[in-house]
Amino acid sequence: MALLFKSDIDRPDAWIPALRHALPDMEVRDWPDRGDPADIAYALVWKPPHGYLKSLPNLKAILSIGAGIDHLTGDPELPRDKPLVRMVEPGLTAGMTEYVVMQSLFHHRRMLDYRDMQARKDWTELQPVAPWQRRIGVMGLGELGADAVERLVHLRFDVAGWSRSRKNLPGVACFAGAADLPTFLKRTDILVCLLPLTEETEGILNAETFAQLPRGACLINVGRGEHLVEADLLAALDSGQLDSATLDVFRTEPLPADSPLWAHPRVVVTPHVASMTIPQTAAEAVARAIHTLERGGTPPGTVDLSRGY
Amino acid sequence: MALLFKSDIDRPDAWIPALRHALPDMEVRDWPDRGDPADIAYALVWKPPHGYLKSLPNLKAILSIGAGIDHLTGDPELPRDKPLVRMVEPGLTAGMTEYVVMQSLFHHRRMLDYRDMQARKDWTELQPVAPWQRRIGVMGLGELGADAVERLVHLRFDVAGWSRSRKNLPGVACFAGAADLPTFLKRTDILVCLLPLTEETEGILNAETFAQLPRGACLINVGRGEHLVEADLLAALDSGQLDSATLDVFRTEPLPADSPLWAHPRVVVTPHVASMTIPQTAAEAVARAIHTLERGGTPPGTVDLSRGY
Repeated sequence: MALLFKSDIDRPDAWIPALRHALPDMEVRDWPDRGDPADIAYALVWKPPHGYLKSLPNLKAILSIGAGIDHLTGDPELPRDKPLVRMVEPGLTAGMTEYVVMQSLFHHRRMLDYRDMQARKDWTELQPVAPWQRRIGVMGLGELGADAVERLVHLRFDVAGWSRSRKNLPGVACFAGAADLPTFLKRTDILVCLLPLTEETEGILNAETFAQLPRGACLINVGRGEHLVEADLLAALDSGQLDSATLDVFRTEPLPADSPLWAHPRVVVTPHVASMTIPQTAAEAVARAIHTLERGGTPPGTVDLSRGY
Repeated sequence: MALLFKSDIDRPDAWIPALRHALPDMEVRDWPDRGDPADIAYALVWKPPHGYLKSLPNLKAILSIGAGIDHLTGDPELPRDKPLVRMVEPGLTAGMTEYVVMQSLFHHRRMLDYRDMQARKDWTELQPVAPWQRRIGVMGLGELGADAVERLVHLRFDVAGWSRSRKNLPGVACFAGAADLPTFLKRTDILVCLLPLTEETEGILNAETFAQLPRGACLINVGRGEHLVEADLLAALDSGQLDSATLDVFRTEPLPADSPLWAHPRVVVTPHVASMTIPQTAAEAVARAIHTLERGGTPPGTVDLSRGY
């Protein structure tokens, strides 16, 4: 019984030793030395070749290296009868929360304006806004969203959340479904997208959505590039409907050099680093998930493919 | 019985109505219309002229508009027998915590590097560091420091604090006094200065202090400009002993146009805005302090002038 590791973006020299340490009783194989497909019981993968997972006769479960699973569901031959487990590990959650809190504070405190003022040696106080007067709205209240809103509440922001099914989170105004979306958007000064990518959420950050936000709102997209209609964002920034944006994810990654987003004075661009799986803590989470599966249980992060996330 | 408001940097058009609203039974006077000195029972002030407070025959207490009191203790004729109350109000604390958390995350997540990379359209992941691997050290554990470290702990950072007398704060390694300073500095990747300005703390951010930090540490100064020896900071940045710094306070404010700090690529400059007293919440805090004093009590923020803060 073996665990196969396959990713083009995560370093096997960090992952393989961490996995062997966390799973001393299991054979851990790196993709180039994957050997006999019949040995592979667990596949820990990022964007495996289409059809490959189906070819494994004794596969017990698919483990995603990231929190998202859209890199797997694009495979038309994905074996949908096997358990599929998203990465749920403390490093991934901590990193995303850090990034969301940092960028929320950055826009709340108008740091793009202060950055420009520093460049021209301009010493001017901008009018402060108390955190309880600043309304942050987080779309997506899964493990990552729930952790982020808890910290934003602790920093005294006026926080709302929007998700497919209604959640109940302390101190957070929770909205759900298409019917609640206008109400949620109307009260949101800083909009954070932490949604999974599904057919329903693709392109949800569009002109119609932006028009429902208060004038001068800010956008933070840490979901997927496909959530955002980039041309609509540029138009909303130009018109002043949006004040500024932070983007960590893009339809095409790496972001092409000719994208107008790179040099836009009101856009912060980072190279899909909001949250990165840390091999040591991730390997421990993988080991826990496998032990749970071996006992016939359902590990945290198990995906309901009928919902798509 | 009157309350006198005097500040050159806070806007009376916001403060006077807020004070009148919070203290409906008291006459509130603005400095240009201060009238008979014998009427003034309370002075709510920022940098009053030296000797002025002593000239008030019926003064009951001095209320500082800011959290610091060094703008008052520089007056050689300060009436030290009167209660002196620092501003303790939720807006001031919330603002400082926001700024400390934001800048800690900014340096932790290497946002100066990502900013430069965005400018040259460079899509490169920098190695992530988990928050529990990042050691933040906060100098000064009064109302502001205690609130900031609580939020930093909640964000999963490895947090230590250093103060004159030893504190006991949940989840924080607490150090105290000169004897502990080397141990505290040795374990600090991001150093935050939230100290009061006293004879003992003036110039504490100097070459000797920087040399005891791990190489590549970051500095966030939100105390007073006089805590920092600017030439030592520039030398430490040039040598690589310090990676970067955020400065909100300066020896000369506004920061002169010829200061090398403005254009330094590893320094974030903001114009003394980390925490700004918000008139509405501050007026309510002033009203509460006055009511407590009138009842013979000791309001929060009352200063022990024998210690200097």
